[in-house]
Amino acid sequence: MNGADALISTLVANEVTACFANPGTSEMQFVAALDGVPAMRPVLCQFEGVATGAADGYGRIADRPACTLLHLGPGYGNGVANLHNARRAFTPIVNVIGDHATYHRQYDAPLNSDIATLVKPNSIWVKSADTPESVAAITAEAVAASYGPPGGPVSLILPADSAWLPAQGEPVIAQKPVRPAPAGSAIDGAAKAIKGAKKPVVLLGGQACRAEALKEAARLEAAGVTVYTDTFVARQPRGAGGYLPKKMQYFGEMALAELEGVDLMVFAGTTVPVAFFAYPNRPSVLAPEGCETLTVIERGEDAVAGLAALADALGAPKSGPVQSLALPDAGPTGKLTSYAVGASIARHMPEGAIICDDAVTSGAGVAANTATARPHEVLALTGGAIGIGLPLAIGAAVAAPDRKVLSLNGDGAAMYTIQALWTMARENLDITVVVFANYTYRILNVEMERTGAGKAGPSARKLLDLGGPDIDFVAVAKGLGLPAVSCSTGEEFEKAFAGAMAQRGPMFIEAKI
Amino acid sequence: MNGADALISTLVANEVTACFANPGTSEMQFVAALDGVPAMRPVLCQFEGVATGAADGYGRIADRPACTLLHLGPGYGNGVANLHNARRAFTPIVNVIGDHATYHRQYDAPLNSDIATLVKPNSIWVKSADTPESVAAITAEAVAASYGPPGGPVSLILPADSAWLPAQGEPVIAQKPVRPAPAGSAIDGAAKAIKGAKKPVVLLGGQACRAEALKEAARLEAAGVTVYTDTFVARQPRGAGGYLPKKMQYFGEMALAELEGVDLMVFAGTTVPVAFFAYPNRPSVLAPEGCETLTVIERGEDAVAGLAALADALGAPKSGPVQSLALPDAGPTGKLTSYAVGASIARHMPEGAIICDDAVTSGAGVAANTATARPHEVLALTGGAIGIGLPLAIGAAVAAPDRKVLSLNGDGAAMYTIQALWTMARENLDITVVVFANYTYRILNVEMERTGAGKAGPSARKLLDLGGPDIDFVAVAKGLGLPAVSCSTGEEFEKAFAGAMAQRGPMFIEAKI
Repeated sequence: MNGADALISTLVANEVTACFANPGTSEMQFVAALDGVPAMRPVLCQFEGVATGAADGYGRIADRPACTLLHLGPGYGNGVANLHNARRAFTPIVNVIGDHATYHRQYDAPLNSDIATLVKPNSIWVKSADTPESVAAITAEAVAASYGPPGGPVSLILPADSAWLPAQGEPVIAQKPVRPAPAGSAIDGAAKAIKGAKKPVVLLGGQACRAEALKEAARLEAAGVTVYTDTFVARQPRGAGGYLPKKMQYFGEMALAELEGVDLMVFAGTTVPVAFFAYPNRPSVLAPEGCETLTVIERGEDAVAGLAALADALGAPKSGPVQSLALPDAGPTGKLTSYAVGASIARHMPEGAIICDDAVTSGAGVAANTATARPHEVLALTGGAIGIGLPLAIGAAVAAPDRKVLSLNGDGAAMYTIQALWTMARENLDITVVVFANYTYRILNVEMERTGAGKAGPSARKLLDLGGPDIDFVAVAKGLGLPAVSCSTGEEFEKAFAGAMAQRGPMFIEAKI
Repeated sequence: MNGADALISTLVANEVTACFANPGTSEMQFVAALDGVPAMRPVLCQFEGVATGAADGYGRIADRPACTLLHLGPGYGNGVANLHNARRAFTPIVNVIGDHATYHRQYDAPLNSDIATLVKPNSIWVKSADTPESVAAITAEAVAASYGPPGGPVSLILPADSAWLPAQGEPVIAQKPVRPAPAGSAIDGAAKAIKGAKKPVVLLGGQACRAEALKEAARLEAAGVTVYTDTFVARQPRGAGGYLPKKMQYFGEMALAELEGVDLMVFAGTTVPVAFFAYPNRPSVLAPEGCETLTVIERGEDAVAGLAALADALGAPKSGPVQSLALPDAGPTGKLTSYAVGASIARHMPEGAIICDDAVTSGAGVAANTATARPHEVLALTGGAIGIGLPLAIGAAVAAPDRKVLSLNGDGAAMYTIQALWTMARENLDITVVVFANYTYRILNVEMERTGAGKAGPSARKLLDLGGPDIDFVAVAKGLGLPAVSCSTGEEFEKAFAGAMAQRGPMFIEAKI
């Protein structure tokens, strides 16, 4: 048994059983050790941003971490953007980052870099296992740390000699940390404030948006409190049979207009909402002036217990409103739009589907049509770094092989991690990918005006438009091993999407909107 | 005039005239400001690793920095791997990283991150322009800092309000730093040591491998000194009419075998060679035991002056050996190999071509055949982070629009930054891309054994092989807008490559080896 064996057996002993990997020479012992632990599923990603985004999707659905295997600083670097998103989703992830042998670091070989500094901004825990004897204990500690609460990505640096040298002993088991219930005083204070407010609002985020918590939140609405969720939620059930709160608007001025007159904002599993970006002469904080704010449930606390206690304290009924099932009667027709896509999705998406949403401006059309669809869950882009929709779907599909996964992507977003299509094909994952092809960074055309930057001239246009040439996504997807079809009309999309839902395995649909 | 205008006009005034960009909302003023400064060429990359690799290629060929435009921490993160390579190539690059408005940072909006920490490992200079008035001076300082010497990537953080608020004044011009000549005592000491040694070797790196420096290095060989270059050199002329030193072997045991009996190693523009990776029971430092080592020219010093002085001090002849032109008589036939590819390249590559080499295990076949080809230059993978061959070619082609650029890539390497193909198409760059498709990380199959990790079983194989499905690179390349062809025989490759050399504009060749 060497350090790599100790690492993998400890991971598996702590219920970490999926490894999204892109290895290099310094990780060869890890790779070899996988053969000895078949309970660990290795999934090759031909780019590390796919691996980290997949680990995020896995963690959100499995509620336990996957590990990644990354090749030194540059390998980790390629994974940074989606780890930023995972940090914002509070997803537990154990990043295993191979490093040079401890004694080799001093020579500053070409692949050497300051990994400890590089990982800092997106890690809630960092350690380097500098001896083989320390590997098992540090690995167990890493898994436990990834749970938080709230959870997040941790970074376990594994020097090559710690992997290849002998390591004795059994796998170390770590205790999963428990989410504490919020203090009774916080519940009582919030209940009292809500009772005394004219127009109170409760804002839910994170764990407060999960299924059991939403049942309790629905009771608040039944008690006359307006309930919102954050704009971007890591994992939220939607559709028939569940409670769907309002959603905080993305654009600050719209959010503030909607909140006009609100005199109390109570935060459950989240914090005060702020504008996604700053704009000249517009406020950063999205709470009305003079509005009182308070936190009833911290991100790391037990949101179900907290919301139940708050509902009880308000004397709320035992249950609140739920969505009824209502599907579009007919498939879409005519020119394809994101709303037409949403209609087909609503009609054919099976119960239990998981939507991975990186559709940017096209997301609204889908969301509008799926609110009363069959029960499903949505994983949103929590950190604003586009390029997560494809990897997230890989992770969700590995975590839940019996559920249909939809990956919705803007064309600009899809291009960041297009390599993910190959992994979907190789692993034969039950994912239907939709890429909304409008051949532009549409959101930036909107934001250019909003930031006061003026009208785009020829140079600016070159950076906002994605045409010239228009990408043929069907050719790309087929080249990467997926069956693929292009749709320009509602009828075409309806047929393609219904077909995708009727089969298992990966399918790619280009939606020309 | 706002801060963004001040930034771009200062960049252009300091000869920074290419911008490899992937913007977001916080960079809209920069994007708008481009319209006012047509001397700055904006090049859109649909992934930031393409932008940073392109800036590296540009800097190596232009000998002045390009800038990148990156979207906050995650945008920079996507560019890290190729900035690692650029740091190891000592390439001047000015990274402009958009950030939230200064007053907005405190609210920790979703895209907020600790950019200053994230950039540290791969920046030789970092500053945030926190007021619009500071932008011009900080920009000039950034450009100057990027030159070093030795050069490298610098990070200029641009908060959105510094970009959009008014900024007065003229562009600030920075003085380019001058490379000092090595001290006379260093030259005399090295000359004396060389004269006293039985088997002296001079090892060249960085600037000591450029055309003018190699002429002087050839004189050392004429004086009886064995001359080597580093294994991976940022930019090196090869082919007829120039001097081609030996190259340090990649595998440590081969390097040490070749250096047996060497009692003196003198470093010019580089440092003591070390093994690319550590291996159990093998040395890290690639100098024979007991061998004396000394540095005659530091990386930041004037290598031409230094090598000339050393040659003079050794009483070397005024000129040394050069390669004669010798091309393969006939094109390759039969099953395609990397050597066959090299033969076709040697036969048809025009004078002045630039080879961007990310071919990993297939590179040797090309190098073996092109040593006596028409004069050309090779840009190598300096930092070991594969995925640079396509972006590097973009930058080289933008910097030298009259030169043919060849981009040679392993299939695994090409996949990291496959988005680069679209930029080649859009900018109609004169690049011929070759992807060596062997459907495996071949180097890792070799390294697995060398690291003592043993034989790959089924799990390990999943992480080493790239097949299942085999990627159809021609379909992918066509989808991204390039004309593309696949070759399985020498005859097919010969025809495709000769055709590519006879035309202008981008062309993609899949070489099935």
